[in-house]
Amino acid sequence: MKPRKVQIIGMGRYLPKRVVTAEELDQKLGLQKGSVAKKSGVSIRHFVEDETVSQMGALAAKEALKNAGLTLSDIDCIVCTSGVGEQAIPSTASLIYKELDPNHQGIPAFDINSTCLSFVTALDHLSYLIDCGRYQNVLLVSSEIASIGLNWNHAESSMLFGDGAAAAVIGPTPEDEKSRILLSRMETYTQGAHLSEIRGGGSKYHPRTYQGNINLEDFLFDMDGEAIFKLSARYLPSFIERLFAEDRSITIKDMKIVIPHQASMMAMRLMQRRLGISREQMFIFSENVGNTISASIPMGMYEAIKQQKMKRGDLVMLLGTAAGLSIGSLVYVY
Amino acid sequence: MKPRKVQIIGMGRYLPKRVVTAEELDQKLGLQKGSVAKKSGVSIRHFVEDETVSQMGALAAKEALKNAGLTLSDIDCIVCTSGVGEQAIPSTASLIYKELDPNHQGIPAFDINSTCLSFVTALDHLSYLIDCGRYQNVLLVSSEIASIGLNWNHAESSMLFGDGAAAAVIGPTPEDEKSRILLSRMETYTQGAHLSEIRGGGSKYHPRTYQGNINLEDFLFDMDGEAIFKLSARYLPSFIERLFAEDRSITIKDMKIVIPHQASMMAMRLMQRRLGISREQMFIFSENVGNTISASIPMGMYEAIKQQKMKRGDLVMLLGTAAGLSIGSLVYVY
Repeated sequence: MKPRKVQIIGMGRYLPKRVVTAEELDQKLGLQKGSVAKKSGVSIRHFVEDETVSQMGALAAKEALKNAGLTLSDIDCIVCTSGVGEQAIPSTASLIYKELDPNHQGIPAFDINSTCLSFVTALDHLSYLIDCGRYQNVLLVSSEIASIGLNWNHAESSMLFGDGAAAAVIGPTPEDEKSRILLSRMETYTQGAHLSEIRGGGSKYHPRTYQGNINLEDFLFDMDGEAIFKLSARYLPSFIERLFAEDRSITIKDMKIVIPHQASMMAMRLMQRRLGISREQMFIFSENVGNTISASIPMGMYEAIKQQKMKRGDLVMLLGTAAGLSIGSLVYVY
Repeated sequence: MKPRKVQIIGMGRYLPKRVVTAEELDQKLGLQKGSVAKKSGVSIRHFVEDETVSQMGALAAKEALKNAGLTLSDIDCIVCTSGVGEQAIPSTASLIYKELDPNHQGIPAFDINSTCLSFVTALDHLSYLIDCGRYQNVLLVSSEIASIGLNWNHAESSMLFGDGAAAAVIGPTPEDEKSRILLSRMETYTQGAHLSEIRGGGSKYHPRTYQGNINLEDFLFDMDGEAIFKLSARYLPSFIERLFAEDRSITIKDMKIVIPHQASMMAMRLMQRRLGISREQMFIFSENVGNTISASIPMGMYEAIKQQKMKRGDLVMLLGTAAGLSIGSLVYVY
């Protein structure tokens, strides 16, 4: 696999105003005090009050542009990498772009969606267009309102999620720097296609088929955590072998930091054990944000930069699973 | 712009079983006999009976694979390029992949969405990954059920649409052949972001907010045809100038065929006049299928191959507008 001379230039994040504690959810779910914190490992998550996907996305994007030292006019393409969009039509990228600056016109905007892996999929694919000069700077934005689709009758899943947005500006690596995307891979195992899903909202169950409590659950998030766990455990080790088979000079041990999708504490600990990742390498930060779907991995990158756990020249691995069921990873020199 | 040595190897199409005539819609819309045919130019469109997006997509994909002389195992990536998906989660690409062969596992599957231009956006972006060897063969599938989201109180828009799917297998051009993607461009003008939309279905208006006739229209397609017409007319000529500025050796006059998004007869005739495209070049086929959203352009390619209006070595232009408002085009040697 040809390394791509692409750099993550700047990142941004937005967390909604409303802070929801584990204790609040203990009450909501009718559980003993301390249950949510213990089971989910998430002490705090943020839920939107009045924020929209496009507003959160635009705020994260503005911070990413600022940190990149660039303005919107420097951007050649805007890709929204959310799992669930703001409207059925048009693309959420168009709505984020409008929110960023309603007077700015002409930048191509579209969506890439592989649910929780959307950001990684877009970073992977767009890196080729930057490397070959089609685009200079590209803006990737993940913005998610998980809270609206949670099933509070399903404690196991609803206690995991949080809302929020994260964004990145990516561009060509300056001549004298070492930033590279070295490896990337995604595999989809459709035997798990219905293990995590929202059945409604598209053409299968149009919103007009909503009939209150009779079929509300078709429009809410549904997952079989144990089955996903098993399927992931089965494919993860060989997936990682195939990923590193593209470049025998590096192994997972060489990673300065591994930023996993913060699916759940259980899923992340499974990954760590199965793949021989050390506790020091594994970057777990969901305690204060929960699982923010597609925004989870870029939020991890943002947080790792802030905590100085990801510095220029470091070898970094992004790794996650997504509805589909997909497994995805990307290895880069930051 | 560097030409990409990518070939459209095989194409497929699926049209739903139920044929809906213009006369049937005259009645449904309470219009004089002949009104729908005259205003829309669409004599026949197909509406799904029991077909789903993934079923239609899989059937179109199977034909594309057959016409390419390939099997699913030859495919390195599956991209669903629909405007509206089957479920909110997971990606529609995963569901089409499962429908294609539930026993086949491991091909990466994800969605690219720019509404009516999704297929063109994906063809453009994936071509770079094929050209540089990341992928060999890629399957692109657009599958749309427009009929479920039409607002029958809005005759102007509801008479235009049809359901259906189209698919393409793309791959590297064989050494001795001339197939190339020469030019591609997309521009988004968010001043038109709300000129064609479905406001509901995402996080803005979650399906649970559906209250029957009180807000049904928020979950149906809404468009201001005249405003889109004006905005497109304003930007199209300069868009085309910027597109061809990348290669001064060709002009729109050199195109053997121009395959426009079959938005509406009025929109296509506007394009033709404004851009100096001849009647012979302009490929209009919506009479028998209507506007099938993202499946429209690849359906045109399928039809042009069948009618022998697009042969190997021919210069072809794909051109369309999409919700966003986006304008997109791609010029290739077939």
